[in-house]
Amino acid sequence: MLSDAKKTLIRKLQNKKHRTEMQKCIIEGEKGVFEAIRSGAQVAFIVLADSYRGAPIPAEHEIEIFDIFDDEAKKLTSTVTFSGILAVVAIPQAKELVRKGPIVYLDGIADPGNLGTIFRTAEWFGITQIVLGPGCSDPYNEKALRASMGSLFRIVPRVGDPALIEILKQDGYTITGLDMQGSDDASLLEGNVVLVVGSESHGISPELETALDNRYTIAGGNETESLNAAIAAAIVFSRLTV
Amino acid sequence: MLSDAKKTLIRKLQNKKHRTEMQKCIIEGEKGVFEAIRSGAQVAFIVLADSYRGAPIPAEHEIEIFDIFDDEAKKLTSTVTFSGILAVVAIPQAKELVRKGPIVYLDGIADPGNLGTIFRTAEWFGITQIVLGPGCSDPYNEKALRASMGSLFRIVPRVGDPALIEILKQDGYTITGLDMQGSDDASLLEGNVVLVVGSESHGISPELETALDNRYTIAGGNETESLNAAIAAAIVFSRLTV
Repeated sequence: MLSDAKKTLIRKLQNKKHRTEMQKCIIEGEKGVFEAIRSGAQVAFIVLADSYRGAPIPAEHEIEIFDIFDDEAKKLTSTVTFSGILAVVAIPQAKELVRKGPIVYLDGIADPGNLGTIFRTAEWFGITQIVLGPGCSDPYNEKALRASMGSLFRIVPRVGDPALIEILKQDGYTITGLDMQGSDDASLLEGNVVLVVGSESHGISPELETALDNRYTIAGGNETESLNAAIAAAIVFSRLTV
Repeated sequence: MLSDAKKTLIRKLQNKKHRTEMQKCIIEGEKGVFEAIRSGAQVAFIVLADSYRGAPIPAEHEIEIFDIFDDEAKKLTSTVTFSGILAVVAIPQAKELVRKGPIVYLDGIADPGNLGTIFRTAEWFGITQIVLGPGCSDPYNEKALRASMGSLFRIVPRVGDPALIEILKQDGYTITGLDMQGSDDASLLEGNVVLVVGSESHGISPELETALDNRYTIAGGNETESLNAAIAAAIVFSRLTV
């Protein structure tokens, strides 16, 4: 039986404030839950609705499982299509930057789908050092987690602000902004580079603009004004030397 | 005054069946409406809610504009955040394929956001020949249009099925699938190539698999199972020779 305390916890964790306080988050859907288990995330417990007909939870993980009725399950979450399985999982600890190779600095990526997708793509290309600047969506909200396909349990972002950029600069890092008025010279993406990805609607914030050493632009355009932030990041990730 | 007939039309056009019958669609939001006007789309009329405080509609376009009250406006659309402006626009006619240079064949891209983003990215890289295979989302639904940022009014997809692939093959086209078990040899993306992009969840459909001449894979992976379909398409678009 799922206790009232656990139900309250699940409802609370749909709110960023409580996620930050408790350092826990919710994952909905079979794919997400299994990715979290596979990635070694600390799963507090799993809730299965009685309509759940998916794969069984591997027994060796000894995770507490609670069954509930569908109508109860529907009341637990805000997502429209509750697929019958969710897990309460500890948010993993961010690692310190190793300060070697590319670092990605996300500057105000407010769309959780874009944010999660950026982690999924970064992992594909072996990019593991990602810093979340001010104005980014909470990576451990349900949409971002879903879009990241488990990558957010393996590449844990570090929170940072423009002061960190200054420290990295003193460490010998080159600060390169992904921008519309730059060059597509591939050498800009080599070595110890901080790639700054600006927000979907406002680009790179003025505070960071002044810190840029270079601007990298993806050649193209035609009648299109810009690329989607996750798309632009992906194309540059595919060109970064890791 | 917005007539009841026009209100009914707006409600109907939120449904794919009616869009196909009438060859009209709805665009919501200032950015989308202005992009459609700029792209020379045939705008039937524009509806402004009384709270609309955006840019004025350029007078030279002589588009009929109807003002309505906010509470009426809210009843017109299904989108949660109605921004105060929408337009009813004619779906543009697809052009015949010129059969020179790359052709993109979308095979079951069911997510409208991914579909719209693919058009936006294709246009950025100068790719203009796109075929929608069976199972794709309707490109003129509101989400796809929004994600395309106007590109769907400039690059109009042609509807096609696997039979078209056979015709293109006879025309000398090479059929290359974007796939997980291929090679990342850049020469696969040169010349007259049909790039087949498979669905988010099922990949390339069996019917098309048998027609493939080559399989192209974006090198990478690590712990990630796959890339998002719009991301994978974007990376390949950035490598295609147009």
